[in-house]
Amino acid sequence: MDDPSALEERLAAGEVRLHELEELTSAAAAVELRRETIATETGVALDAVAPMGFDAAAATANIENLIGAVGMPLGVAGPLPVHGEAIDDEVYLPLATTEGALVASVNRGASVVRAAGGVTATITRRGMTRAPVFRHADARSAAETAAWVHREEPQLAAVAGETTSHGELTGIDTYVVGDNLFVRCAFDTKDAMGMNMVTIATRAIAETIEAATDATLVALSGNLCTDKKPAAINAVEGRGRSVTADVLLPHALVEERLHTTPAAIAEVNTRKNLIGSAKAGALGFNAHVANVVAAMYIATGQDEAQVVEGANAITTASVREEGLYLSVSLASLEVGTVGGGTRLPAQQTALELLGVAGGGDPPGRHGDALAEVIAGAAVAGELSLLAALASRHLTTAHASLGR
Amino acid sequence: MDDPSALEERLAAGEVRLHELEELTSAAAAVELRRETIATETGVALDAVAPMGFDAAAATANIENLIGAVGMPLGVAGPLPVHGEAIDDEVYLPLATTEGALVASVNRGASVVRAAGGVTATITRRGMTRAPVFRHADARSAAETAAWVHREEPQLAAVAGETTSHGELTGIDTYVVGDNLFVRCAFDTKDAMGMNMVTIATRAIAETIEAATDATLVALSGNLCTDKKPAAINAVEGRGRSVTADVLLPHALVEERLHTTPAAIAEVNTRKNLIGSAKAGALGFNAHVANVVAAMYIATGQDEAQVVEGANAITTASVREEGLYLSVSLASLEVGTVGGGTRLPAQQTALELLGVAGGGDPPGRHGDALAEVIAGAAVAGELSLLAALASRHLTTAHASLGR
Amino acid sequence: MDDPSALEERLAAGEVRLHELEELTSAAAAVELRRETIATETGVALDAVAPMGFDAAAATANIENLIGAVGMPLGVAGPLPVHGEAIDDEVYLPLATTEGALVASVNRGASVVRAAGGVTATITRRGMTRAPVFRHADARSAAETAAWVHREEPQLAAVAGETTSHGELTGIDTYVVGDNLFVRCAFDTKDAMGMNMVTIATRAIAETIEAATDATLVALSGNLCTDKKPAAINAVEGRGRSVTADVLLPHALVEERLHTTPAAIAEVNTRKNLIGSAKAGALGFNAHVANVVAAMYIATGQDEAQVVEGANAITTASVREEGLYLSVSLASLEVGTVGGGTRLPAQQTALELLGVAGGGDPPGRHGDALAEVIAGAAVAGELSLLAALASRHLTTAHASLGR
Amino acid sequence: MDDPSALEERLAAGEVRLHELEELTSAAAAVELRRETIATETGVALDAVAPMGFDAAAATANIENLIGAVGMPLGVAGPLPVHGEAIDDEVYLPLATTEGALVASVNRGASVVRAAGGVTATITRRGMTRAPVFRHADARSAAETAAWVHREEPQLAAVAGETTSHGELTGIDTYVVGDNLFVRCAFDTKDAMGMNMVTIATRAIAETIEAATDATLVALSGNLCTDKKPAAINAVEGRGRSVTADVLLPHALVEERLHTTPAAIAEVNTRKNLIGSAKAGALGFNAHVANVVAAMYIATGQDEAQVVEGANAITTASVREEGLYLSVSLASLEVGTVGGGTRLPAQQTALELLGVAGGGDPPGRHGDALAEVIAGAAVAGELSLLAALASRHLTTAHASLGR
Repeated sequence: MDDPSALEERLAAGEVRLHELEELTSAAAAVELRRETIATETGVALDAVAPMGFDAAAATANIENLIGAVGMPLGVAGPLPVHGEAIDDEVYLPLATTEGALVASVNRGASVVRAAGGVTATITRRGMTRAPVFRHADARSAAETAAWVHREEPQLAAVAGETTSHGELTGIDTYVVGDNLFVRCAFDTKDAMGMNMVTIATRAIAETIEAATDATLVALSGNLCTDKKPAAINAVEGRGRSVTADVLLPHALVEERLHTTPAAIAEVNTRKNLIGSAKAGALGFNAHVANVVAAMYIATGQDEAQVVEGANAITTASVREEGLYLSVSLASLEVGTVGGGTRLPAQQTALELLGVAGGGDPPGRHGDALAEVIAGAAVAGELSLLAALASRHLTTAHASLGR
Repeated sequence: MDDPSALEERLAAGEVRLHELEELTSAAAAVELRRETIATETGVALDAVAPMGFDAAAATANIENLIGAVGMPLGVAGPLPVHGEAIDDEVYLPLATTEGALVASVNRGASVVRAAGGVTATITRRGMTRAPVFRHADARSAAETAAWVHREEPQLAAVAGETTSHGELTGIDTYVVGDNLFVRCAFDTKDAMGMNMVTIATRAIAETIEAATDATLVALSGNLCTDKKPAAINAVEGRGRSVTADVLLPHALVEERLHTTPAAIAEVNTRKNLIGSAKAGALGFNAHVANVVAAMYIATGQDEAQVVEGANAITTASVREEGLYLSVSLASLEVGTVGGGTRLPAQQTALELLGVAGGGDPPGRHGDALAEVIAGAAVAGELSLLAALASRHLTTAHASLGR
Repeated sequence: MDDPSALEERLAAGEVRLHELEELTSAAAAVELRRETIATETGVALDAVAPMGFDAAAATANIENLIGAVGMPLGVAGPLPVHGEAIDDEVYLPLATTEGALVASVNRGASVVRAAGGVTATITRRGMTRAPVFRHADARSAAETAAWVHREEPQLAAVAGETTSHGELTGIDTYVVGDNLFVRCAFDTKDAMGMNMVTIATRAIAETIEAATDATLVALSGNLCTDKKPAAINAVEGRGRSVTADVLLPHALVEERLHTTPAAIAEVNTRKNLIGSAKAGALGFNAHVANVVAAMYIATGQDEAQVVEGANAITTASVREEGLYLSVSLASLEVGTVGGGTRLPAQQTALELLGVAGGGDPPGRHGDALAEVIAGAAVAGELSLLAALASRHLTTAHASLGR
Repeated sequence: MDDPSALEERLAAGEVRLHELEELTSAAAAVELRRETIATETGVALDAVAPMGFDAAAATANIENLIGAVGMPLGVAGPLPVHGEAIDDEVYLPLATTEGALVASVNRGASVVRAAGGVTATITRRGMTRAPVFRHADARSAAETAAWVHREEPQLAAVAGETTSHGELTGIDTYVVGDNLFVRCAFDTKDAMGMNMVTIATRAIAETIEAATDATLVALSGNLCTDKKPAAINAVEGRGRSVTADVLLPHALVEERLHTTPAAIAEVNTRKNLIGSAKAGALGFNAHVANVVAAMYIATGQDEAQVVEGANAITTASVREEGLYLSVSLASLEVGTVGGGTRLPAQQTALELLGVAGGGDPPGRHGDALAEVIAGAAVAGELSLLAALASRHLTTAHASLGR
């Protein structure tokens, strides 16, 4: 390890670059050196990003050129009783956000849902996907490769299986567009969100396809995956987990606690979430599901950019004799309880709060449970906002909460 | 202020609820009490979320039921020279993420862009929107309200102006669907992201409309805004700022630094980002713009759920005689440098790093500059990933970075 | 004019090509010669396409290489009372289709609507669009052209005005994507559908832009028009005419005549047309509006490929105290009563049946009226199908009608 | 049979309604009586719609309330050599349209494609779909029905098979949204477009599901089919047939015959069909494929409203060493050569021209061939228009053709 002051000089002299520091000193010292160097260069004091709450060394798999941390305020809502298939428990919802009123809103919804006995959650699809794109001489050739792929699916599953002990190929869809073939591979990734695992397995599949057919790989991701872009294929076919949470709220409960009626909430939902989103050309037919997904993703160490897919959700509200039936169906919720940001201590703690930290037993149970809880939280958030709109105090709520 | 131990007893007895603590003790004590209570209830040690990096009292406008913070690792990429209209400077890009390889990827792209002289950025639209939905007797009546709204736009602008000294009504669009009228109000919100300001101003407009016409307000947001849902109206018409960043990279630079060619990158872009996204029914035609938007949003205290709209981006790549022309056009980037999460110390520091903390001079300049920088960073990210795909080492990169 | 038998020989010898016949003989003789030549070449008797119902010479602006006609069966539904702003009359709806049960279905719906006093129709937007795409050095340059365009809109309106005495430029929207600028020009084309008129006017605008700025025209249509492709921009912003038709049907009427209830119809509409279409990633939230649009387009000589945009429709159904409120809002209905196929005798007759043949007084009135009638017919069609689904005899209806 | 003049009196007296005439007199007399009655009522002479080209009696399965026919001008383009898997022949393309310049445009494209040896066509998916929607107590119950459906697919295939000797269930997809279950059933319908066959078979499936599970059928079509609405599910997953046609055009051919270059055409395609459509939020990434689909649909007796799905097409153009590679991929082309409008004499003749009238051997071959020919014609149409744009004479072409 080099002497810090010597390193500082070499940095200043341009002999060493900021991202090379970890090779020359400890992770902690590298962070400090980088912070000092940038503070000197820019004249901006970086003290506020120094408190991290995690060891620099422990974060090397999560970030490069580390200079500190940004503290996202963490609040809790609930407890919310979630009756899922992988979890049946009453949990505090960890929400990391800087948007005032959000936690309060989810909390209010959770409180009413709890009074109704809790939310039920059901997973209806599973599959993390990666879709390479291959070039061919023409469409006929692309179609021949597609036929080969479908014929050889068992072989491809075996090839994929050699790259991972956790993931399992569960299906392949092929799409021909001109001389392009897109091969959408879906995997059960158990408790991992699985993007990296799936990418590695798909690379093995892609190499096998290339070797056996006339296909030439152009890109390991051909955007039919679809990762981190709003896309109908995810909204329709799902990605990660498709999960629905729902609740039946007695008329009296809605009236007493939310100062509105099931009919008024259903009307807001139809005019805003269904007709409004229809007119907007939307892939999201909900009020603010992304708020809940984003806050729980950040709290629990998920990939924050996948909020994009998390927003592919449809909220339904209908009046029944017994009360208001409210549901949220998230088509493409990508979550994991191992790997990625889940390893960091605060994020790990948030998962522990939900009882889903680390791998589940059987594998996949924790991933399922996390998806069920987020869907349940989304119901609480939708209920609260729809009721607020129905009783007309959206901005008042924000205003009184000082934002 | 109550005695902490007395409060603890009252909490345990259910006489006080968790979210009421701030009324009875200091913000800091409330956080600690809540943490202890929940730790006791759940048996989960919450020490890891205790280091916050901000004062509890300072965060009351950002969150409720605060129990601590989640530390998002903060790295830097660059410096990146950004030639915008509101900023013309070389800046370190603050990126908060837990996705390994992301900062390294943006850094690599930034380094190549810097070698080409930097990225140019241009804002082409501005306007934060809110679109209430009104119920009518029928479509004819809705159309009459719409006509009234267009006729009375100056009056409505004045009404809106009374609610805010910062925002300014810049346009109104109306949409009739059955007996519904959606009134999409656009505002110039200067350096604020402005959602709250716009909601308050739109409420005043909605009340004026209700008073003068046959319209009945159903919801202050009718989803044609569209906030935090993937929606074509944002991808087409924009929301927040529409901004394009672009760069021209000499052939030799691409070959030497990225080990591929402009033609190979253009091919990947066409087959993946254009044709692939087309086939996916996407509203995002890019590789991973959301990654950059999410990481910079979290670093700089933006609304993390608006990553959804930030993903509405189109990347183009074409080969010219001089080299590779690469551009990223973000249709709906919602940013602010005042209010919301920007007030927290680490987030404020990230804005300072970019030289855009607080209100700009003239107002709006900092908001513009932040948008230009994010667009520039997106170009760096796209370049790096497209080049990696073109030279086929996507998974290798991830693997060697230990993720 | 050449001698027919001599021409036949020259055709056989390849000295004359099929599409050159009109230059050498009469239109009628050309058709016959072509038919004979092709019949000989292919061995297929073409007698069945010989009855045309129009003079070959009169169709030269509508088709090339004419060999005859295809008879589309023409039925009528109604009469339907339409209370529009351009028409307030009871009309027989001409429907040309080969889909059994369609006319019967619309007829049933029209009959019930008539019993309720008729349908109301309201036009909420007008504007036929063409959007050229221009290439620039970069986005900054594209933005500068956009600024010039907005500044010079009056000049561009004048330039456009010189190309047509009928059309009028009513607005310009600009969109920058990378180094591309799309300029969407909207025109009031009065009683003409106007695509050709608008293309010519837009060409003049494009040439003016090219002369004054750094823009280079790439294509006179850059697909943001959007003509004959399903596109959100049309569904959101409209094209041609945006028109809503609606009706309020008393409970008893629905029950007696349709053997179902307003609540059952509203439920089918919500689950099928709203939630189902939402899940399908649709731009059309209706049951079968395209059926009515297609059949009336063919009957009245509209551009049959624009059925694509005609399908951008949202059907709403809600239960009120007075009965069922049913509406259809067509965002982008492109119609004309002059030019194109409207000049052919049968098509002209269909327009006469509606009282809208030729130019209206004032200009545009006939175009408006035709849009209002089609929207009204769509309400009849939606009512009938939704009621059939609600009372569960969709396939029975088809079956008993022998299809 | 009643005496015509007596019937006329009873019609006038309102004792008989227009649509009841076929029960009381011959089909031909009914048509005439209806025409006379309406002419009298409206004062509009209906002579122009009298020439039909088909027997009234033969059209009873195609239309109700028949009053005559609308003659759609029929032109031919080609011959075009189509190298498909179901057809390998040089065919004249029958196009029924009233849009001047369209046939000429396709003809020009066909001529250039022929010079390059013809177009290749490949079918990559098959399946006509119908997707009923069922109501449940909640999402869990809907998921249980879905599981039952997947488990019992063989039984459901058998149930479907009892309703038809032609169709065959090839797959079922299920989608849960709240308490709704959508069951998308796909069938191989051989030479029939098959919508009616599939509806009847799906009704049997739906009844079986209802009997065995907690599902209640709400509508036999839940809009995830998706029939006659623009919808991503069709653009992504296909409906009817997914078919690609492509051609490789030598550089010299493009230059000599089209007065432009492969590079210029590829640039127009990228900026207009890919980037332009991307910005428009489109499901169609092509120039005017719907024109060709509509004209061939009408000529060959297809369901004209399904032009909507026919427009879900992606055109690609790229420059290769050997020349321009051009392709059109139609995701959801719904065609048949038996049933529906194909039975009418002119439409039957158009199919004969293509050699695909009636059922194929083996069954499905004619349907495949028709899809391949339409895709080939679409390539000709795209080539012609893209080349015209590239060489800048779009409006000139229209103008000189007198439209």
